[in-house]
Amino acid sequence: MTTHAPLSDIEIARAATAQPIEEIALKLDIPAKEVVRYGNDKAKIKLSHIETLQNKPDGKLILVTAITPTPAGEGKTTTTVGLGDGLNKIGKNAMICIREPSLGPCFGMKGGAAGGGHAQVIPMEDINLHFTGDFHAISAANNLLAAMIDNHIYWDNTTGLDTRRITWRRVMDMNDRSLRQITTSQGGVANGYPREGGFDITPASEVMACFCLATDLKDLRRRLGQILVGFTRDRTAVYARDILADGPMTALLKDAMMPNLVQTLEHNPAFIHGGPFANIAHGCNTVIATKTALKMADYVITEAGFGADLGAEKFFDIKCRKAGLAPHAAVLVATIRALKMHGGVAKADLGTENVPAVEKGLSNLKRHVENLRKFGVKEVVAINRFPTDTDAEIQCVIEECEKLGVRAIEATHWANGGAGTTALAQHVVDLVDGTDSTFRTLYNDDISLWTKIQTVAQEIYGASEIVADKKIRDQIKHFQDQGFGHYPVCIAKTQYSFSTDPNLKGVPTDHVVPIREVRLSNGAEFLLVVCGDIMTMPGLPRVPAANSIEVDEEGLVQGLF
Amino acid sequence: MTTHAPLSDIEIARAATAQPIEEIALKLDIPAKEVVRYGNDKAKIKLSHIETLQNKPDGKLILVTAITPTPAGEGKTTTTVGLGDGLNKIGKNAMICIREPSLGPCFGMKGGAAGGGHAQVIPMEDINLHFTGDFHAISAANNLLAAMIDNHIYWDNTTGLDTRRITWRRVMDMNDRSLRQITTSQGGVANGYPREGGFDITPASEVMACFCLATDLKDLRRRLGQILVGFTRDRTAVYARDILADGPMTALLKDAMMPNLVQTLEHNPAFIHGGPFANIAHGCNTVIATKTALKMADYVITEAGFGADLGAEKFFDIKCRKAGLAPHAAVLVATIRALKMHGGVAKADLGTENVPAVEKGLSNLKRHVENLRKFGVKEVVAINRFPTDTDAEIQCVIEECEKLGVRAIEATHWANGGAGTTALAQHVVDLVDGTDSTFRTLYNDDISLWTKIQTVAQEIYGASEIVADKKIRDQIKHFQDQGFGHYPVCIAKTQYSFSTDPNLKGVPTDHVVPIREVRLSNGAEFLLVVCGDIMTMPGLPRVPAANSIEVDEEGLVQGLF
Repeated sequence: MTTHAPLSDIEIARAATAQPIEEIALKLDIPAKEVVRYGNDKAKIKLSHIETLQNKPDGKLILVTAITPTPAGEGKTTTTVGLGDGLNKIGKNAMICIREPSLGPCFGMKGGAAGGGHAQVIPMEDINLHFTGDFHAISAANNLLAAMIDNHIYWDNTTGLDTRRITWRRVMDMNDRSLRQITTSQGGVANGYPREGGFDITPASEVMACFCLATDLKDLRRRLGQILVGFTRDRTAVYARDILADGPMTALLKDAMMPNLVQTLEHNPAFIHGGPFANIAHGCNTVIATKTALKMADYVITEAGFGADLGAEKFFDIKCRKAGLAPHAAVLVATIRALKMHGGVAKADLGTENVPAVEKGLSNLKRHVENLRKFGVKEVVAINRFPTDTDAEIQCVIEECEKLGVRAIEATHWANGGAGTTALAQHVVDLVDGTDSTFRTLYNDDISLWTKIQTVAQEIYGASEIVADKKIRDQIKHFQDQGFGHYPVCIAKTQYSFSTDPNLKGVPTDHVVPIREVRLSNGAEFLLVVCGDIMTMPGLPRVPAANSIEVDEEGLVQGLF
Repeated sequence: MTTHAPLSDIEIARAATAQPIEEIALKLDIPAKEVVRYGNDKAKIKLSHIETLQNKPDGKLILVTAITPTPAGEGKTTTTVGLGDGLNKIGKNAMICIREPSLGPCFGMKGGAAGGGHAQVIPMEDINLHFTGDFHAISAANNLLAAMIDNHIYWDNTTGLDTRRITWRRVMDMNDRSLRQITTSQGGVANGYPREGGFDITPASEVMACFCLATDLKDLRRRLGQILVGFTRDRTAVYARDILADGPMTALLKDAMMPNLVQTLEHNPAFIHGGPFANIAHGCNTVIATKTALKMADYVITEAGFGADLGAEKFFDIKCRKAGLAPHAAVLVATIRALKMHGGVAKADLGTENVPAVEKGLSNLKRHVENLRKFGVKEVVAINRFPTDTDAEIQCVIEECEKLGVRAIEATHWANGGAGTTALAQHVVDLVDGTDSTFRTLYNDDISLWTKIQTVAQEIYGASEIVADKKIRDQIKHFQDQGFGHYPVCIAKTQYSFSTDPNLKGVPTDHVVPIREVRLSNGAEFLLVVCGDIMTMPGLPRVPAANSIEVDEEGLVQGLF
């Protein structure tokens, strides 16, 4: 029986002595001249170095995903970090690739996103605050496009953009509900033509999605150029390149494009790069970081946002498809607490042993395991152990998973770091070593957009059907006819259920997925399919985390957790 | 006769081989462990190192300012960099302190702000783009306060803030006229209470002014906490600390507070830190950078925004007063071209010799010299020589200045770097060496706010009087009565004339200064006095610089100039 460490995340992170980042880079055979240092413990890796790696063989790619999230938490990032450390602990050359956190949630509710306990990436405060400035660069690029659109209209509007049909929104990396819906250009002639607009949070920017899917700066510029910004009166599409925004946006993102190298508490290398939402975007770190890591390490552990129905599906069907990645295995993270919630237990009662609830909640896990198999990857369940978990509860998960033909392995990385995941790490190695990836996407490029949505809804969400108003069906047909039929679909729905109703825990079946809106993310090259209320600009809670964040007398940030 | 170099600024900057930034730091006796590197050629200096310097003697502080700006240009930053290099060239230990550029103008009209020709700070592109992220941090802190204000109102509004009387605006480091005046929180209950608001450009943020005037993190937090955000229905002031925003804002600015070290083309050290507007703020780099530089170098050359009527006056009356700085000398930069424009010559005719116009235009320069003397500093005129200038024109300036008792010295730093300013540098040394500063502010703290405004208008602008509506006079009296009477005044007026009419070149006299608005910048601790149209959010021009900015095949940014 392990217990969680008595220290807070930030205390553990600060107690660690980081190795100089050049030493971490040297472990990956990156020469010092190819390292752009940001302080002693953060660096970017030059694109010139990345180009030299193209002919090296790829390591094995392993995805960490999770069961349907509950307020009890799963610990996906923590498990990713812990598994990376565990693989290194058993003598393997492994590295991790995770997403950069957004400032918004840091000052809101969620706290930091650099792992936890003894499974963290450091420097924790820097990663959670401005890090190497990538999110700021993405916000600036997004908002430069917005400024250029309104400026274009202000002066002469040679493209004939219809100000009622501008689809491009501004972004800010902040939880600020009052910017969701605004009217801009008020105050008279000098300020332009008043129109409705709004801000999303930076991870929801299509620039973020382009950034994360781009293979290099040239591909980034191509994607930025083809971002759809609006339509003319006669419904002709206007793209970012039409107003010459692709060049300066790329200039703003030039440095951001270099992957960020940091280390885990156990001094193993980690890329933290890009951070798109997993609802209106695809929810995983940059293609460039993942591809580079695969050239540098034998095992690359990466994570995808939300539960496997959203994160893993998009990782496979968008990122892997587009980037030509062939993942070998998926680790499905579960906690006893979350399984109990799926089994109907209230949050207040999670501390009490309840094997029947665990067993009932396993229905959710089982569906995710079955789903993962549809992508042709090996799978393993990681039980992220909490101090209140009982051996009987753990045993129940192990036995039920055995019936399903999947190993469930306890992991105590939160308390023990890499030493807590060696069994999991060894099993992952056993699963993937000496095998070729048998990865497949869920659907082929050439089936229709409508059928793609239907396939995901039925095969992954367990829905009986998808429904949409005629207007939406016409739009989908329009995009199909206009030559975008080969795009994958990126479905935005609640992360709290397989269905579109966040209250349906466990394994909802025979539910219907209503399509509320479709949008062409032409830079990201997917069709965004919105099913249900999707928040693209969060608000701050009544008592935001910001209220307790400060700098103490010693110059240390307090209140980040 | 010298000619301007045939290469563009960016070509010259790129041709230079930067010394590793640790070597530059070593010249200033900064140990490597106190240097936070950002790549090979940028660094921040830890506050812990700065604390160790407090008992060292101060070097001599020299301000670079300019005559009233014209479209012909003066070259203030260029002269600052050139003079720093010139002092080093004649064997002195000198460093420079300048402001960070804003992204907005970079993509708009102005181009970069890292000097020019052979008098530049490098790396030019980085400095002009995201640099070390300070402006992004300032934007985030400003906008976190805005989000916390609206969130405070959304949940319970325990302070009773009147949503009609919120004075805090958001910022973005972008030229975007459509954000000047907006209506926020539209779309119903979940988005809050609709109200009017707007965005300024980041250099116009009061957070920027606080940041630039703060002596350390503790002082920064104090200033941020006392920022006035609005009033209740019964006109009680509400401050940022009342909604607990001072702590998290300081956390966002913790790293930004460390001065940024770079080098000139001649490998001399330069701090580039902070960049407030010179109209609605005080227009000079951070107090912490200037004070630190004075501990590290025998001569510190710094600049202030716009002409001497705005920049120098505020440098002396706000920054030096508040920070206890005692400058020794001021360098007044002039160009023959600008003098001709003040003498009535149209821009198209500036290439033709016109000694009478130069002589006429010198009236503007003379007033600035007389003004500078009121602050008790030594002064010298630097003629920033252009290839079209004739010897007769230069001679005219030298002779007229001689009559005034001030040396005018030709400087060719643009073409020749430090070698082009050795005469200027030697004269500066002769002026300040072996003397104590006789600096004095223009007015004392204890005269009334109204008299302070009057003093600046009459003594510096040459106005006959100041006028204001009863409402404004009442407001000034209100601030006087409320205990803010000891604050200095920060006057925002056009930079293009001594008067408030931008078309009045030369030396307008007997003009009247109308006060349009007063605002308490309580974090910055000055009374902002707005006289005339002041742009706090620029727009992009018809053909913005952005249109030609891009990343070339080699990954280099093109189009920044």
